[in-house]
Formats: sequence, C-alpha cells, structure tokens
Amino acid sequence: MKKKLRVGILGATGAVGQKFIQLLAHHPWFEIVELAASERSAGKKYGEAVQWFAPTPIPKAVTDLTIKPCVPKLNCDFVFSGLDAAVAGEIESAFAEAGYPVISNSRNHRFDPDVPLLIPEVNPDHLELIQYQRYKSGFIVTNPNCAALGLLMALKPIHDRWGLEKVSVVTFQAVSGAGYPGVASLDILDNVIPFIGGEEQKVETESLKILGKLVNGEVQLASIVFSAQCNRVPVVDGHLECVSVQLKEAATETDIVNGWQTFTAESQHLQLPSAPQQPIYYFDHEKYPQPKLHRDLENGMAVSTGRLRKCPVLDYKFVVLSHNTIRGAAGCAILNAELLVQKGYLKERTI
Amino acid sequence: MKKKLRVGILGATGAVGQKFIQLLAHHPWFEIVELAASERSAGKKYGEAVQWFAPTPIPKAVTDLTIKPCVPKLNCDFVFSGLDAAVAGEIESAFAEAGYPVISNSRNHRFDPDVPLLIPEVNPDHLELIQYQRYKSGFIVTNPNCAALGLLMALKPIHDRWGLEKVSVVTFQAVSGAGYPGVASLDILDNVIPFIGGEEQKVETESLKILGKLVNGEVQLASIVFSAQCNRVPVVDGHLECVSVQLKEAATETDIVNGWQTFTAESQHLQLPSAPQQPIYYFDHEKYPQPKLHRDLENGMAVSTGRLRKCPVLDYKFVVLSHNTIRGAAGCAILNAELLVQKGYLKERTI
Amino acid sequence: MKKKLRVGILGATGAVGQKFIQLLAHHPWFEIVELAASERSAGKKYGEAVQWFAPTPIPKAVTDLTIKPCVPKLNCDFVFSGLDAAVAGEIESAFAEAGYPVISNSRNHRFDPDVPLLIPEVNPDHLELIQYQRYKSGFIVTNPNCAALGLLMALKPIHDRWGLEKVSVVTFQAVSGAGYPGVASLDILDNVIPFIGGEEQKVETESLKILGKLVNGEVQLASIVFSAQCNRVPVVDGHLECVSVQLKEAATETDIVNGWQTFTAESQHLQLPSAPQQPIYYFDHEKYPQPKLHRDLENGMAVSTGRLRKCPVLDYKFVVLSHNTIRGAAGCAILNAELLVQKGYLKERTI
Amino acid sequence: MKKKLRVGILGATGAVGQKFIQLLAHHPWFEIVELAASERSAGKKYGEAVQWFAPTPIPKAVTDLTIKPCVPKLNCDFVFSGLDAAVAGEIESAFAEAGYPVISNSRNHRFDPDVPLLIPEVNPDHLELIQYQRYKSGFIVTNPNCAALGLLMALKPIHDRWGLEKVSVVTFQAVSGAGYPGVASLDILDNVIPFIGGEEQKVETESLKILGKLVNGEVQLASIVFSAQCNRVPVVDGHLECVSVQLKEAATETDIVNGWQTFTAESQHLQLPSAPQQPIYYFDHEKYPQPKLHRDLENGMAVSTGRLRKCPVLDYKFVVLSHNTIRGAAGCAILNAELLVQKGYLKERTI
Repeated sequence: MKKKLRVGILGATGAVGQKFIQLLAHHPWFEIVELAASERSAGKKYGEAVQWFAPTPIPKAVTDLTIKPCVPKLNCDFVFSGLDAAVAGEIESAFAEAGYPVISNSRNHRFDPDVPLLIPEVNPDHLELIQYQRYKSGFIVTNPNCAALGLLMALKPIHDRWGLEKVSVVTFQAVSGAGYPGVASLDILDNVIPFIGGEEQKVETESLKILGKLVNGEVQLASIVFSAQCNRVPVVDGHLECVSVQLKEAATETDIVNGWQTFTAESQHLQLPSAPQQPIYYFDHEKYPQPKLHRDLENGMAVSTGRLRKCPVLDYKFVVLSHNTIRGAAGCAILNAELLVQKGYLKERTI
Repeated sequence: MKKKLRVGILGATGAVGQKFIQLLAHHPWFEIVELAASERSAGKKYGEAVQWFAPTPIPKAVTDLTIKPCVPKLNCDFVFSGLDAAVAGEIESAFAEAGYPVISNSRNHRFDPDVPLLIPEVNPDHLELIQYQRYKSGFIVTNPNCAALGLLMALKPIHDRWGLEKVSVVTFQAVSGAGYPGVASLDILDNVIPFIGGEEQKVETESLKILGKLVNGEVQLASIVFSAQCNRVPVVDGHLECVSVQLKEAATETDIVNGWQTFTAESQHLQLPSAPQQPIYYFDHEKYPQPKLHRDLENGMAVSTGRLRKCPVLDYKFVVLSHNTIRGAAGCAILNAELLVQKGYLKERTI
Repeated sequence: MKKKLRVGILGATGAVGQKFIQLLAHHPWFEIVELAASERSAGKKYGEAVQWFAPTPIPKAVTDLTIKPCVPKLNCDFVFSGLDAAVAGEIESAFAEAGYPVISNSRNHRFDPDVPLLIPEVNPDHLELIQYQRYKSGFIVTNPNCAALGLLMALKPIHDRWGLEKVSVVTFQAVSGAGYPGVASLDILDNVIPFIGGEEQKVETESLKILGKLVNGEVQLASIVFSAQCNRVPVVDGHLECVSVQLKEAATETDIVNGWQTFTAESQHLQLPSAPQQPIYYFDHEKYPQPKLHRDLENGMAVSTGRLRKCPVLDYKFVVLSHNTIRGAAGCAILNAELLVQKGYLKERTI
Repeated sequence: MKKKLRVGILGATGAVGQKFIQLLAHHPWFEIVELAASERSAGKKYGEAVQWFAPTPIPKAVTDLTIKPCVPKLNCDFVFSGLDAAVAGEIESAFAEAGYPVISNSRNHRFDPDVPLLIPEVNPDHLELIQYQRYKSGFIVTNPNCAALGLLMALKPIHDRWGLEKVSVVTFQAVSGAGYPGVASLDILDNVIPFIGGEEQKVETESLKILGKLVNGEVQLASIVFSAQCNRVPVVDGHLECVSVQLKEAATETDIVNGWQTFTAESQHLQLPSAPQQPIYYFDHEKYPQPKLHRDLENGMAVSTGRLRKCPVLDYKFVVLSHNTIRGAAGCAILNAELLVQKGYLKERTI
C-alpha cells in the first residue's frame, strides 16, 4: 500500500475512541487525520480535551488535532465510530448517507438487516450485505459486543465441523468493558456484580446473526439455543467465559482442541496487519487461560481457550478468554477495516 | 440450657479454626476449653502461636489457652475440626474412636457411608446415619464444601416441590475459601483463575449425597445431573454462583421465588442459636445479590438469591450467594452441632 | 432521655446521607423523621429514589419516608447535613437562619470564625463559639475532613503533653472517601492515585483550627507546621496514614504509647452513645494497624495506631488508621450531636 | 558485538529469575545458555519445573534447558543471580571465587566494601571497586533494593546540583516486590500493610552507599539523613513513593524539573541496549505519575516523577514511580551488565 488511507475517529475522546487512537498509532495502512466528538469537546485540541487514561502517552500525531463536531464534513476516507449508543445511530447513518464508510463498534446498527455484524475470522462472507445497503457510496459495518466476540471465535471451528445445538455461557467481564468512568470502584472492589445491562441479550442474539448463513442477500439466523449470564468482576481488561456446548455430531476432545489450534481464516491468509498469526490458542495447563496472563497474546488480538472437558449436562465445557477492548472492540473494528481494504470496499475517497 | 458444653477445636490456628473461635466467642450453648493444633504450635499460648487475621481481636477467653497436640486426650464434650485434609482423616477417626463426637468441616469423611454430610436446612434426617457408625460413643458429622452449600440451600425448596433433573453451576469463589496463606496476591489481583483443585468434583458429588434419600440406613444418591465450573475471583469473602436448572415438573417464576422466600426448616423451628431467621433471601433488584453487599446477611448464615429468569437451554437460571467461611464452613458446622444438641446427640461427656 | 429527638437528614440519598441513615438506625437518642435531598429525588419514597449501596438493607423506618426538598420547612428538632459542597453552604445557612441546629459533615462552613470545627475528643471547648453565631436559635457545627480526623485524634495526646512543632503526613485513602460514584474502577484497580483535589490543604489547615486555642471567643490557630501528601488506594474503607512528628519537648516511645492507650476525653466521661470506650488503640504487632483488620474497631469509632519508632528526619514516626466514613464523617457528626445534647445545645424544638 | 555473551541464571525458577528470562529473551548482547536452581528443580526441564506466571509464554530458547544445581560449573561467560537471600551469599561468593562475574539482584553482598552497589545512571564510577575484590577473575556487582532505586534516580540530579540534607520517603509498594508466592491475597485485597520486613533499613542505608563518593578505593557514605516508611498496597507492579527533601542550596521548582527532564548519564551516552532514552520523566498532570499508567514507560526502565511542590516541613515534596521488578530489579541488573560490557569487565570467558 503506497499511501495510507486517511481516517476519522467519531467519539474520539471516549474509551473506545482512545483505544482506536492507541491501536492506530503505528498502523501501516491507516493514518488518523480527523477527530470528532461531542459539542463539549469540539473546537479544542485533542490533548486538552481528552481525559487520557491509557498506559501509553497520547500519540503525538493526534495531540494537536482540533476536535470537530460529529457531522459528515470530515476530510478523510472513512471513519471509525466509537460513539456512545445514545447518539451513534443517527450520526453513523448521516455519515453513511454522506458517502463515508463507517466502521463502527457501536451497537445501534448491528441488527440492520443489510449491515454486516462482522468478525473477519467468523463470517467474512457477510460483507456481501454491503451492496444491499440503502446508502450510495457510504456504508456501515459493525463488530459484535465484546462478550460475544471471544465466545464466537471459540465456537466457530466447532460449529463448522460438528454443528452447535446449545450453548450456555457465564461471563466474567472486566471493568474496561463499561467504558469510562464506567463502573464505580465502590461497586466492584472486593465484589462481583451479577448483571450488565442489555449484555445477555446482546450475546444471545448477536451470536445467531454472526453464525447465520447468508442466503440470497439475507442472513438466516443460526438455529442454536444460546443462554448467557453476564457478570462484572474486578479485573481491568479481559473477558473470561465459562462455556458449555451441545453438539449435533460427536467430537472427541482431541478433535476440538485440534480444531482450535489449527484454525485460521481469511484474515490470516490475507495477512491483515492486525490479524493474529494464531487466532485461537489452547492451553493444557489446568489453571489457564487467565485474564492477566493471556489477554495480551498477539497484541490482544488472539483468543485463548483451555480446560476443555466433558460436561455432564451438555457435551463439553471449556473456558475462553479475549481482550475486551482490543479483540472485542476497537481491534476488531480495525481488523474489519483491513479486510474491507483487501476486499476493495475501502479506498481513497475523492469528494 | 443451664451449662455450656465444653468444646475443643482441632486445627485451632488455621483459617477454619480461627473462624470457629470467632463465631463461638459469645455462643450461648458452647464454650471453648481446649485448642489443638500441629506439633509446631503445641505447647504455646494461642495468642503467641497464631497468625490471627480476623478483623476482630482474638477473644480473650482463648488467648492464653495452651495449644495441645491433636490427640484424643482433650478435656471437652466434643470437638470441632478445622483440620487440613492432609491430616484430618486419621485424627478425626482417632477422636471418634476415643468417644468424642467430631463435628468436622474437613472433606475426608464426607463420603463415609455412615457419616452424615449435613446441612440442617436440607437433610436433617441424615443424622440417623450416626447410629450405624462403627464408633462406640463417638461419631463424626461433616458439612459440605463451601461452594456446594449455597447452591444446595437454593436448590432444596426447588427439588422438594418440582424435582431437579439437571443443574449447571459456574462459581465465583472468594479467596478466603482457599485458607491461609492460600491464593497468592500475584495470582489473583486483576485476574480470575478458572480452576480450583478438586472443587468441581466436590460440588458435583456432595450434592448427590446431600439431596439423596435415606433408605434403610443408607443414603441413595439423588438422580440429578450436576455440572460445576469453579473459578477464583479477587473477592475476600462470599461465593457467588450462576446456576441453571432443569425441573421435572413445571414451575412458574413466582412459584420458585415464593418457595425461597417462605422456606424454613427444622433449624428455624427449633430456633437454633446460629440459624438464620430467613434462610433464603430473594432480591428483586437486577444487580443483586452481590458478595460485598449480602454476604453478611443474618451474621453470614443466610443465603441470597436473585435474577431468577427463564433459561433458553435448561428451564431457569438464577444467582445464589453465600458466605463461604461462615455459612459454607465453620458456621454450618456450628449449626450442625446445635441441631445435634437438640436431637440429643451432643451432651455433657463424662469420662 | 425519655423522648428521642426528631432528626432530619439533608442530602439523604448521597453517600454521607446513607451513612447517617445506617448509623442512626438504632440510635438511643435520635430518630429520623425527615429526609431531604435534591429536586430530582424530592417527592419520591426514599426506597425508590436512593441507589442504596450499604451492606445492610435500608432501615424500614425510612424506606417509605417521602423525600422533601432541602428547604427549612422540615418538622424536626435538628438536621444532619451530608450535602454536597456545591450546595451545602447556602442550604445550611438557610436552615440555621430558620432556627435549626445544623450538624454538618460538609466543608463549606468549617472556617467560619464562629463555627466550631469539632472533634469531641479533641476540642470540645470550641462549642463555646456557637454563642457568637449570627443565627438566633439555629446554629452550625461541623466536623473535619476524613483524612484530618484520624491524624488529629492521634496527635491530640502528643500535642497536649509535649507540644507539636512539625507534622508530616502521607495518606493512603480509601475510595469510599470520594462518595458515590466517586472514583472510577478503571482509575484505581491495580493502581494508586497520588492526588485528591483539595485534600492536602484541608488536612493542613483544618488541623490548625482544631488544635487551636479558644481565646476571647476566637480560635487562635495552632502554630504547628503541617505537610500533607494525600493519595487514593484501592481500599474500600479506612484511611491509613504514615506520620512523622517533631516535638517541642522530649518524650520517650513509652510515653507516647501510654499517652495513646490511656487517652480519654469528655465523650468517654459523658458516655456518649457513639463514643468509643477506648478512643485510641496502639498495636505492638509490626504489621498493624491495617484498614481491613482495624477499621471497624468499636463500631468504626476508634482510631488505631502502630509502628511508633524514631524518625531520623523529625523525632518520631508512626501509623494511624481510622474509618473514613464512620469516625471520619457521619459517625463524628453524630458524636458531635450527642455532645451537643449533653451540653444543652440540642433539645426538643418547638415551632 | 559479533557474538553474544553466554549467560547463566542463578535462581532461574524464582520470581526474579523468571524476570531475567523474560527480559533477556531478545537481548542483542546476551544469550541464556544455562539455568540453575535449587536441588528440587535441578535435573528437570525448565518448562516442567517452573511455575511460570508472566504474561508472556516461556521463551522457547529456555523451555527445554535442563536446570542445573547452583554450583560453579556452568558453561557460560557470566551469571545473573536472582537467588533468594537465604542462599545467595554463599553461592554468589562461590561463583566469584571460581572466576565467574556475578551480576546479582540479591541483597547479601550489597554492603561488602569492595562490591559496587550500582545504578548505571547514579554511580557508574563505583565500578572501580571491582579491582579491589578478593576474587581472581570473578567478581560481584549488585543492584539496590527496588524501593531505593526509583528514589535514587530522582534524587541524583538534585543531589548533584544542590546537595541533599534530609530525605523523607513513604512508599506504596506493589506485591510483585515480595516475589512468589509472596503476599497472601487475604492479606492485601482491600488492604494496606504498613510494614515490609527489612525494607526501611535497606532504603535508608543503601541510599547512603550509592550516593557516596569513591575516595581511594573506598565508598564514603553520603552524609544525608534518610527516613523511610515502607508499605505494601494492592498493586501488581510499580512502586510509588511520596518524597520530601531538604536541600543544602536553594533551588526553584523549575530548576528541579529541568534537572529531571534533562538528566542523562553514561548509560544513555553509551546507548546501552536496556537504557531508557529519557531516564526521568516529569509529568505536569496533578494526578500523575500512577503505577498502572507509567510503570511500563520505556519498557519499564524509565522513572516517573510528578507533583513537585513546596513542602512546609522540608523544602520540596514530590512523587516518584518506578517499575519494581524491571527497573528496580532484573532490568537494573541487566543494565549493570551492559555497562560492564562497555567498560571491559565482561567478556567471553575461556575456561
């Protein structure tokens, strides 16, 4: 790629926006040229407006950028959206309407029938939906909820080979999943909160679309029964999930572990810059995976599994872990954009 | 009760032993007169030998007691055992052999066919097993694993009325469940450990004995399928569990909530001193129960439930919480002893 | 006391307001009859308006009370104020103006020259200031900042006997000190924040007023040099402080420890209901005091000290701990009110 | 450097040993060829013997190395020692005696008069001591305690220009500083422990040697008064310290901040591979530095300062932060070794 695509970030001062900025700091294909945020921040230099809370300094390239309002007058080739759900729906539509490709981490358009809810390793064929979108040159592509992502990565090779009938998942979700300020320390220090608003439904429904088949330009929801129980734990980053599955066809433990360890997908074959070389790790160690030890594998883009064993109630149970703000949010959106580049959907935009 | 029964504590310096001492500090029926521990501590004053880590000072009555070795020469009416499993089996047998009633929190004798694995609210009839024990005047009574206890309290009224077919449970267990020093802070700060040695098997098997029926002096294991996934979280006290159940007969959510809220058992009817007035609380608040907020309900002896809702995979799912070192360990053993007093099994011992 | 005084709580839904409600649930002298809060909550039942986060249920007596606006039309004998500093100044003045005694935990009036900044064990004589207040029958009494309180309790017997010249203190403050939602979990999990807005100045200046002498109806600030460095740590409750002091006259370590252990004050002599029997504990154990172990001593009203030793830079250094939301906030205000009752300042109010 | 020096790690399975292995995984000058540990591990493959707890996998190059006993028969050019202090003294002497350069993180030899207690940025001239060591070709070089390191880096430019008279420091130390298993989670979750055995003395005494002047082959201890108060907090990595200093000559705040920001030393001039480009960062943000945000600056080798302001008791106070297991331990030892290479003390060893 000779020239980097020029990127705008919607919601640049929020938690997801900051993560986009971090992850794009040295990106080989994308360059941040526009930052947009709420009226409160618009007009200020980014370095002054943001309450930066990442463990690395604000990249110099964006510190002095002036924040613009979230209206489709940004001078860039496409936008990443880390907007809050309260406003993301309309703003993202407006940008797509105005001809911008919108790569969004927000939930608002995930169930639009013509919007791909995309994980490059799981359902890259769903990109075809873009052609049915109502917008002219613009379009919207979304990535799933952070708790759904790790789960679906681990389920993908299982579902492809043996078919899933039932999936029961209990999550241990990190506080960074709630954005900033997010969870109050008084609520979570020395505690577990057995509820995250809307999360269980997201996991249960998004999974069906993502594992669904594209038939005649429509996604047919997968016929799998999902049950999710979502919980917040005092962990900074990394969602761990205890999963039980019932399969349509018989598989051995060795089969499944092999399925994970040998799994690769188009994002690996295309050598997308943010794609993990090994998308799914399996650990034999009975105490693995763990958030603190494995969330950063392959720059936070790999998913870790472990403890595969028979489940007396369903067929198998296991543990899966993924980095919720990287693989499960901004990192997935960036990988989506990379796939879109290689598929010809994203290119220099001439206005 | 005119005169308090004289109690000995086996394993008095350990985590469970300390909890016995705390909980018995002002007990109306029992008085600690003997402390026994390993050879390393024997001969020392308790206040000097123990690394006390409770949030209240060492009760004055025991500070100056001289620790004795764990041999059945204690001058007391019965003993509580908080011994480590590595030594509990033999020592408890020796005490029972020598005529002491042994109320144990250790796992070693839980599956002896003639030893009650007892929760006063769940299977008080199992006390009948005592008469079949090989010992003359002594006997052993045990209480279950801390992760099994809260679960079984919540399942009891459900199983009694509608019958359980399948139970799937994922636990969020506090670090105090691992004793002292137990879990290293480097392992659990900002982390979840998805494994606790032997714990899943304990939950799955102990539940079958406790919910089993006593027929002709034998416990017939309940024919329920249990699946447990046990995890350690950075919480000090309180095991929270996400549970899914499949019932034999249909029940409504209202039925089940009523079942919990109106549940009482012999320990309540007999007004045992440590019995919670309401054994099972149900919270309507979608974020409840939580370890920090509810573990201390009724001095840590009540169990809290919440979030009852349909489960797409089984029938219902819910959350249960109990204080692992009180209700799930030393507190349950004390309640067991209180039931034994009222049933005539424990009395002044004349040597 | 035959009849309980009728109490109103200003700022009843906030963190401090909730603490007042908890601590007054079974108070022998005071009974909550009025709750007042912001317009947002006014008109609602307390149980519906509050986001209750205490580990014990909302006391039944207040659950159904209707919240009123913070205007001086409450039907009660006096008010406790847990108002946010943004509004406390004016509202408290209005209540005093209207004839209500106001026992406030807010900082706004702490430096009014005629308002006592009161710790019953430290400067009970400052109550005399009330007579100089501009209000007719109403008046305002305040208690100090939570980080100042433990420090001043520990310094009081030292200053009285040997005179303080310099005090250097570094604090380890719990998150509950920041109210609710207060500190974001993302900011404090696995972290220390070396700054708390305005806190260092409060510790440095309030100490001078509290240790000051009342001369001719005016408080002469103590001539001691204070330096404070205030930090937030991931602890739920309990402020720990590392203190170094330089004395005017020589004292031995034994002297100082004796000074602490034998210290009592008017609140003890008058046997005020919330007064700790022993206001200051000293622990010989080199690892004590600790927030988790000692914050709840004497229902959170005692202060703990430890590790007294020579300081190579000043004279002595030591550690002090106090419960920040009890002894350092609502509990101190309640103790202040109790002292005011015994001194004849608080009584049944006839309108 | 054409050929890498062959390195042995003493205490390879411990916490410090693991850190050496992590940090040396891709080192340009050093290659691990020998691992040594206690008899318990000797003879096993490293991957099987170690309880690896780092967030990155065991480097492949060492997984299959067979652990040897800690006797001076290792086939390598020099050794890093992460040995426990209980055994480090004798073993390190034996290696030096046998001709090995020993770069040690252990405390045992830190006060040997002829052993450099070395921080490359602070006292590189102390290397001269090596020539006075009793060993023939072998020698010992040590690095300071993890709590002393960050402090001394921050003090160095101050002491050089204005002279230090008094230093008072209160530490907030991470649990990783206690090794593994180290601090029990029950002791530190929701808690602060105001004591770390031997730590205060180490900070107070090591500082005097490191800031001391080398005169006629002897280190003359600096004549500065140090007072340290050391505390453990629930943080994984990163020691934060609140410091007050009294200077011999007057300096402005700008002077001191400039002193920090422009500070470089021989390790920077020689471009040692592990040397931070900027050894000391100063943050204007009043809430900085923080362990979670800044411990990893420059791969954990930089030190962060902030909040410089007047101290009413001494002259100035400020906050300093450093990564305790990298900059404060294994990373400093590696930097020491790099300096030794450039100074000609470490080279290929021919036996």
